[in-house]
Amino acid sequence: MKKHQVIFQPSGRRGEVEEGTTLQEAARQLGVELDAICGGKQVCGKCKVRINSRLDHLSPMTDPERELLSTEHGAVGDYRLACAARVLGDVLVFVPQESRREKQIVRKTATERAIPLRPAIRKCYAELTPATLEDPQADWERLQAELDRGFGLEGLSIDVRALLKLQDRIREGGWRVTATVWMDREVIRVEPGYREASYGLAVDVGTTTVAGYLCDLSTGRVVATSALMNPQVAYGEDVMSRIAYAMNHDDGLARLNEAIIEGLNLIARQATEQVGLTPDDIVEVCLVGNTCMHHLVLGLDPYHLGVTPFAPALSRSLDVKARELGLRVAPGANVHLLPIEAGFVGADNVGVLIAEEPYNQEEMTLIMDIGTNGELVLGNRQRLLSASCATGPAFEGAHIKHGMRAAPGAIERVEINSQTLEVRFKVIGLSRWSHALEEPRAKGICGSGIMDAVAEMFEAGVIEASGRFNADLETSRLRVTEQGPEFVIAWASQTAIGRVITVSLADVRAVQLGKAALYAGARLLMRRLGVEQLDRVILAGAFGSYINKESALALGLFPDCNLERVYAVGNAAGDGARIALLNVDKRREAEEIARRVEYVELTVEPGFQEAFMEAMYFPHMRDAFPHVEYLLSKAPRDKG
Amino acid sequence: MKKHQVIFQPSGRRGEVEEGTTLQEAARQLGVELDAICGGKQVCGKCKVRINSRLDHLSPMTDPERELLSTEHGAVGDYRLACAARVLGDVLVFVPQESRREKQIVRKTATERAIPLRPAIRKCYAELTPATLEDPQADWERLQAELDRGFGLEGLSIDVRALLKLQDRIREGGWRVTATVWMDREVIRVEPGYREASYGLAVDVGTTTVAGYLCDLSTGRVVATSALMNPQVAYGEDVMSRIAYAMNHDDGLARLNEAIIEGLNLIARQATEQVGLTPDDIVEVCLVGNTCMHHLVLGLDPYHLGVTPFAPALSRSLDVKARELGLRVAPGANVHLLPIEAGFVGADNVGVLIAEEPYNQEEMTLIMDIGTNGELVLGNRQRLLSASCATGPAFEGAHIKHGMRAAPGAIERVEINSQTLEVRFKVIGLSRWSHALEEPRAKGICGSGIMDAVAEMFEAGVIEASGRFNADLETSRLRVTEQGPEFVIAWASQTAIGRVITVSLADVRAVQLGKAALYAGARLLMRRLGVEQLDRVILAGAFGSYINKESALALGLFPDCNLERVYAVGNAAGDGARIALLNVDKRREAEEIARRVEYVELTVEPGFQEAFMEAMYFPHMRDAFPHVEYLLSKAPRDKG
Repeated sequence: MKKHQVIFQPSGRRGEVEEGTTLQEAARQLGVELDAICGGKQVCGKCKVRINSRLDHLSPMTDPERELLSTEHGAVGDYRLACAARVLGDVLVFVPQESRREKQIVRKTATERAIPLRPAIRKCYAELTPATLEDPQADWERLQAELDRGFGLEGLSIDVRALLKLQDRIREGGWRVTATVWMDREVIRVEPGYREASYGLAVDVGTTTVAGYLCDLSTGRVVATSALMNPQVAYGEDVMSRIAYAMNHDDGLARLNEAIIEGLNLIARQATEQVGLTPDDIVEVCLVGNTCMHHLVLGLDPYHLGVTPFAPALSRSLDVKARELGLRVAPGANVHLLPIEAGFVGADNVGVLIAEEPYNQEEMTLIMDIGTNGELVLGNRQRLLSASCATGPAFEGAHIKHGMRAAPGAIERVEINSQTLEVRFKVIGLSRWSHALEEPRAKGICGSGIMDAVAEMFEAGVIEASGRFNADLETSRLRVTEQGPEFVIAWASQTAIGRVITVSLADVRAVQLGKAALYAGARLLMRRLGVEQLDRVILAGAFGSYINKESALALGLFPDCNLERVYAVGNAAGDGARIALLNVDKRREAEEIARRVEYVELTVEPGFQEAFMEAMYFPHMRDAFPHVEYLLSKAPRDKG
Repeated sequence: MKKHQVIFQPSGRRGEVEEGTTLQEAARQLGVELDAICGGKQVCGKCKVRINSRLDHLSPMTDPERELLSTEHGAVGDYRLACAARVLGDVLVFVPQESRREKQIVRKTATERAIPLRPAIRKCYAELTPATLEDPQADWERLQAELDRGFGLEGLSIDVRALLKLQDRIREGGWRVTATVWMDREVIRVEPGYREASYGLAVDVGTTTVAGYLCDLSTGRVVATSALMNPQVAYGEDVMSRIAYAMNHDDGLARLNEAIIEGLNLIARQATEQVGLTPDDIVEVCLVGNTCMHHLVLGLDPYHLGVTPFAPALSRSLDVKARELGLRVAPGANVHLLPIEAGFVGADNVGVLIAEEPYNQEEMTLIMDIGTNGELVLGNRQRLLSASCATGPAFEGAHIKHGMRAAPGAIERVEINSQTLEVRFKVIGLSRWSHALEEPRAKGICGSGIMDAVAEMFEAGVIEASGRFNADLETSRLRVTEQGPEFVIAWASQTAIGRVITVSLADVRAVQLGKAALYAGARLLMRRLGVEQLDRVILAGAFGSYINKESALALGLFPDCNLERVYAVGNAAGDGARIALLNVDKRREAEEIARRVEYVELTVEPGFQEAFMEAMYFPHMRDAFPHVEYLLSKAPRDKG
């Protein structure tokens, strides 16, 4: 048998193959991964390659090949389908990015990085020989054999719900079907004919905010997002009050569980609706949340999380059928829950870790995931500590006089001119800063807005380091109500609610309590690790908009650090959920890192109360903040 | 380190172990399987052994050991627990039958044989270190690690329903629990404390009769049985009419599925009630049934089974969570469905095969499984053919004038004196044959009774070979009604229903149709295999009582065979379900054999109609029945 040399670019892999071998088979032999849904049937067009040598060293182009290539490129040019083109002489083949099995997804984090696309599910197109009286093999074994032959998927099982539809789907498709295979192990759905698309849903289940990301699993792109207030808020605003609700009501656990499951179903519905899909199109779900949210999604009684020694039911990652949880997505879909660490440091923090990868860095990094339950990680590649603290819902815009979730109409940025005390603000949904004459759109303040407002009020002297309002100021923006003093951010004429939007003393106190808990926690972790100075700080949280790092430092949310090394990364827990949805290797990484992080129980850590009290001050009662002083000493910015 | 010689009897395995090794560890090292639920904690007492050498070559007896051993034996004698006794010198150890991991279950079949007890589930007792603030490991990982350490069960998963109860169960048991482990893979239940008992349910889902066997999984014993009429009978008496019902009604499939699931739930309830248990105690279910029943239990549309080429949805065995099917047994329990062969030859026939093992025999064997759907297997270790035929429900006592299910009050045996035409019969629930003066208990005739009655009527000349009634007989037992002639089996004074119990012409016709289908099928299989004479015939069926083989041969139910080589084995499909429940190796054997049997579609087999017509005669129109002639030529038996 004659042999020819084949070289694949850009990998440079080369070798000799027998004449007549397809380029796809040659790629397999030489270890080059090529995409393919149809298993070499010239149906999917995923394996197109560019020929960088003589075209007549390959078999002539087939009709289906010409059709598939021309639709995408206008002219076919020197492109071929690897599954159709057979080697007749030496060839040089270029594999374009989109034809590689593992596509790259570039993500924005504190350190920009790319992850390969390796979702848990894969689509496999199969053409079956119709059953006859002479060959009455069962439908499933027929499909199983074909998936083994075409994709090397040996010993597959089939989900019982997929099985129920199997016979009809096969006949609807004229004995051509596309199987959705989970973890190369189980067929979870069968669709008639050739179906390329597949979607997954990543969800960050926060105590206050639930955020969902609908992803195209073939490209890694987020095609829709949907967020809502966690419906459990009706039963308590933080994790401890939810646990108490579950303990004190016979049907408490069931209510909390049903509330979040309905919330997740709503997110699935809203996100898919935006792009003309239905929840049934979601074939994989990946969830993160703190330990309490994690337990409540599963229907696990959080009682034991609320009493010493706070042992969770399980901490490893878990795959469970979505239908077992009451989630109305594709009937065979699985839910992957990332592992939890310990205490309330849950799968959401593991999500932050795999998104930011502090375990791959030399620099001493502090990660703060700021939500109603705040989570802290301190360390680097040598060692990582974690802790959890009750921050309260202020940073998510909840339990604030004019607070609201980050949604159109929310004030997300505030600036106060320290001379005139004039205020300008930015509203979600509008691209420009506020002007007195513009359309009144503001409805309230979200988490990042309240943090900005308090920081600016402090810098402008509206409030003192202790949080007390400065009564001597002469400005109509400072008002006193029965509940105490408040500062006007937006005049009634600037709002859509027809009333002023203010920041009250109680709001300032809520911010103080939250930031003190975070700061004290960070300090205690630094003491445990023997660290005096942070190299980097990463601020994460489901604020909706990214937190303003200058404001955060001015308030003393975290120990002093060079502002250039402070990164606001948005909802990193949600990013982590999305990463785990798109890449199964990152799931394994999550499992390992969750076991490596050392959990510190702050409530029993000596000195926590004192550290907490001292941190109530802006930025702190004792600790030095050279970078804040530098900020304050700068010439007043041009504001208002 | 000093070493000593240890010899285990009766296996004869021997070797040297280090001083201080427990006998259990020594057994493990030398490949001797010892039973143990508690993993060496001196709790279960399963690993007791007899010491056949100097007792002082072992460490002194411990208190828990003395207690466990004395309760069972009165005096402790020379017994020890292998997990407690440590080797201090050379020892000779006898492992009694009950301490071996694999117990033997002896079963009555055509060829008596024993199978080892190897159920899919195993119980493991674990003592956990309580969680503390210093060691707040999650409960599941704590248990998982302990099951790995104590039983070598690595990488176990836990069923989500078992997980939901985990934390409470652990604390109820004071950090001592018993885990039920499925296939050494998944924890399906956790009970507080030490719990030894476990139960499984084997069910034969027949078209007309559903029979359940509740088994103790630690001994293999059947502790209760429960049978009922398949509730689907309301929607059609045979498989084709049920398929038609599913096709012609929008909710047809759902109704059929719900009917059988409710039937299975009733069986689980009735069987467990008899022995003071609840369905929740059932941790594993094993089901057999013909292909249509198999599909309907799963909720699979039987439409494709009713149209050519009759392809089933799947034929391999399947494990599915009982709760997915709506079965109310232990929440984590699995259902194992045996594989199906082809056409309507289903998991019930596979059950018959693993119970009777014709594939291990040299002799040419015909197996007839007689139910509303009859199934035939012909062959030996070289080759096996199978076929299916519509027998009708007559052999299960259904659609017979005075027919009933085999239950107390059913006439199961009939004898007719051919001189006097006097009849005597035997009723289920009474040990003696009928006498004119005894308490009237007969309520109807079951399958084996109707077969006996027709055979005896034929032998006594009441009916002719064609099935026609002999009008010339002078006996008050012969009566003519509007529906035609009938023969009185029991007088009104002998029945509990106050009316006579008769066998009518229509009943005889039903028996003729059924037996003709079976006989014709058997003949065509013999032709296919080139077989002239059968070595053995095995008659199986859920008649309730064993079929009378003389009657069956006299009627021509199967081709002529030496009566001494005809075996009536009762419900072999149910036996097969029980065997697969008790032994996972037999499940593998079932999978292999199901793929090896060659299925013959009788409806398209040339000559079937003619063979069927000829077989309508008693015993047959043409075929010679030397053994029937011998029977008939014998001096009339002393009857009546």
